[in-house]
Amino acid sequence: MQPQALPGFRDFYPTDLALREHIFRTWRRVAARYGFEEYDGPPLEPLELYTAKSGEEIVGQLYSFTDRGGREVSLRPEMTPTLARMVAARANGLRKPIRWFSIPQLFRYERQQRGRLREHFQLNCDLIGEPGHLADAEIVALAIDAVRAFGLGPEDVRVRLSDRRLLTALLQNLGVAETQVPVVWQVFDKLRRTPEEITAAKLSGAGIPGATVERLLGLARSRSWSDLPGLGPGLDAALARGEPLRRTLESLEAMGYGDYLDLDLGIVRGLAYYTGTVFELFDARGELRAICGGGRYDNLLQSLGGVDLPALGFGMGDVVLGELLRERGLVPEPGSSIDVFLAAITPDDLPHVLGLARELRDAGLRVEYALAPQAVGKQLKLADARSARLAVVVGPDDRARGEVMVKDLRGKAQESVARSAVRERLTSAVGRVG
Amino acid sequence: MQPQALPGFRDFYPTDLALREHIFRTWRRVAARYGFEEYDGPPLEPLELYTAKSGEEIVGQLYSFTDRGGREVSLRPEMTPTLARMVAARANGLRKPIRWFSIPQLFRYERQQRGRLREHFQLNCDLIGEPGHLADAEIVALAIDAVRAFGLGPEDVRVRLSDRRLLTALLQNLGVAETQVPVVWQVFDKLRRTPEEITAAKLSGAGIPGATVERLLGLARSRSWSDLPGLGPGLDAALARGEPLRRTLESLEAMGYGDYLDLDLGIVRGLAYYTGTVFELFDARGELRAICGGGRYDNLLQSLGGVDLPALGFGMGDVVLGELLRERGLVPEPGSSIDVFLAAITPDDLPHVLGLARELRDAGLRVEYALAPQAVGKQLKLADARSARLAVVVGPDDRARGEVMVKDLRGKAQESVARSAVRERLTSAVGRVG
Repeated sequence: MQPQALPGFRDFYPTDLALREHIFRTWRRVAARYGFEEYDGPPLEPLELYTAKSGEEIVGQLYSFTDRGGREVSLRPEMTPTLARMVAARANGLRKPIRWFSIPQLFRYERQQRGRLREHFQLNCDLIGEPGHLADAEIVALAIDAVRAFGLGPEDVRVRLSDRRLLTALLQNLGVAETQVPVVWQVFDKLRRTPEEITAAKLSGAGIPGATVERLLGLARSRSWSDLPGLGPGLDAALARGEPLRRTLESLEAMGYGDYLDLDLGIVRGLAYYTGTVFELFDARGELRAICGGGRYDNLLQSLGGVDLPALGFGMGDVVLGELLRERGLVPEPGSSIDVFLAAITPDDLPHVLGLARELRDAGLRVEYALAPQAVGKQLKLADARSARLAVVVGPDDRARGEVMVKDLRGKAQESVARSAVRERLTSAVGRVG
Repeated sequence: MQPQALPGFRDFYPTDLALREHIFRTWRRVAARYGFEEYDGPPLEPLELYTAKSGEEIVGQLYSFTDRGGREVSLRPEMTPTLARMVAARANGLRKPIRWFSIPQLFRYERQQRGRLREHFQLNCDLIGEPGHLADAEIVALAIDAVRAFGLGPEDVRVRLSDRRLLTALLQNLGVAETQVPVVWQVFDKLRRTPEEITAAKLSGAGIPGATVERLLGLARSRSWSDLPGLGPGLDAALARGEPLRRTLESLEAMGYGDYLDLDLGIVRGLAYYTGTVFELFDARGELRAICGGGRYDNLLQSLGGVDLPALGFGMGDVVLGELLRERGLVPEPGSSIDVFLAAITPDDLPHVLGLARELRDAGLRVEYALAPQAVGKQLKLADARSARLAVVVGPDDRARGEVMVKDLRGKAQESVARSAVRERLTSAVGRVG
């Protein structure tokens, strides 16, 4: 039996890698436009980094083991603990606000089901040292641009925003008891996948009076800030706690991203550590899992790394985004892997082919030639198989005149070119910069 | 106590990551010029993939464990087994020769000592499906270009080439017995770090006659093909086995790489699976460990993946190369992380700053602005701290005239620019393409 990859792990053949690189390159370009600098940490970390503060779900899915030195270690399931560790180690020397991004590969031993992988790559963007709403708007805008740059518009992707401070205050104002709050959060977290009558029944089952259930469902249905006051009296004090969210939305509208945004108080986010703004990006048809999730986690750096800095950020995975790009026809066509194929007519021409290969590669061209002796016709077939745009044929007669033959393999035109002018001619034909 | 990274694992802060990206980007550019396409595999693989054919040294250093599903797994210590697995799975559908590269992170639990890490990144280039010497020359040329592209010349880096077929034939011709061959290989592998009298003593100790020891030392001292026949009679048959090496050297000279090359029969390479050409790249001063090692492994794909294809390749690590670049002053200066800083004079100007940020970022510029309200002077200090080249100040008076103020933060010049002309003006000043 031939060896295979582990279940849930991907092989990236060149065509798969080309899509991955397209995604990474686009993410890097967008992050750079926001002044974000790239960092990375080890994929293997001390286990305690994750058991300290991560949600229980994550701890149960760790790839953890004891290394040869007796250390408890784990493959990273998320990037934020590493980020907190690194920032804490140099907190005083780093300019604030810290604008950092990374594209780590993350690992979780998830129950196997269709489309569920055990590794994925995730764009992580974090903004550290700013407590105000402009930082929230900046991070959400960056998340939007990180999908928009692929050609995905507001008809493809929706941003659902909420704020834990606001939701907590609303529940208090509506008289939801401390003991009932966890049920409401659980129910809200599943709203989109649950018929409303079942949601209502669950809330009633937790002892919440019918009128309050109605108002909670109204909250969950709200899709913009202006919907909220219409939900009735007694909410003014709670809405004051929503001021950061309101101003975040306003700032995003000033940036022209209003058409991507939905207020959605059902966005809870599983991870335990968020303290304010929470948001997720979904495909607009609601057919795929979340593309991105993030929010403000003002206490996490303190509890993980001992440094008291407000912070917020998001993670955007490569898997769901890749599915959406494929579905929308936004995956770039694979190009040819070479520009120029060199062919030799006789064995004596081969050293000249080798010298020309070096010269053209030094000029930045992508060059191949046959690695075994064969007839020119066969060499040119290989050039076609590689989708080369140009071929150069080196033969004794042309060489005697100080020339080579340049063939355009698309237009099928050909012409003699002075050997000394070949590099210039080919680089301008290909338009590639070294 | 603050959490730390595991010993032997690196954190990449933005300045470290910038060097890593410089190395990766350069490697990718060079590989592309040779028509090589990038692939990748999982960093975690079934343990058996490595226990089957890797050298014993590697197996003793594996990060291996049992996963939650009871599978024996290991972090990858090298890339070739994954490559063999992937090629075998699609052997018939892949165009030959296969020209693939990858930049995997590899993991070995090595004994800790200065400069020894437990992870590193490695450029892996492999050429599959060609048995002839032109393939050997192509792979060695690619390895040379993968260091030359950083500005390292033949006075910085040496390529030491040998051929296992040749060395085996030479030992036979010199009358070295089958049982003595392993001792000679071991001794040859340590030649450069051992005084010649100790080498001679070891060879004599293995029962090799004094005259043969002298000739073996002569072989080890040879630095070019033309040295070899001078070693005395009886070598002609053996030199015939060196024909592929001779022609590889010739082809590399035709490409103009002769000044990088040293014949060195002391190059043995620890890994068990090489069958022909073997080579290593070293810093010319001989102060660092090998930068790169590789060779031909014609039987490995058969034994690992069940597909009979000749193959050869190399691995080049990021650690030693990085040390050499630092030592030679070839690490690029870190640039600024932004192009333009936007400042608002009054709170009413902020929405205009936000809209302008979106517009300029869409045009490909790297843009920041203050995320908390503060005086313009303080905002411009932040712009300086970020090494921004340009600042745009948005204020009520300028806005009333449909203008903003553009400041060159290096030359300290400033001028009013029509709001509608800002993008054009800034993109041409920065010269950045979106």
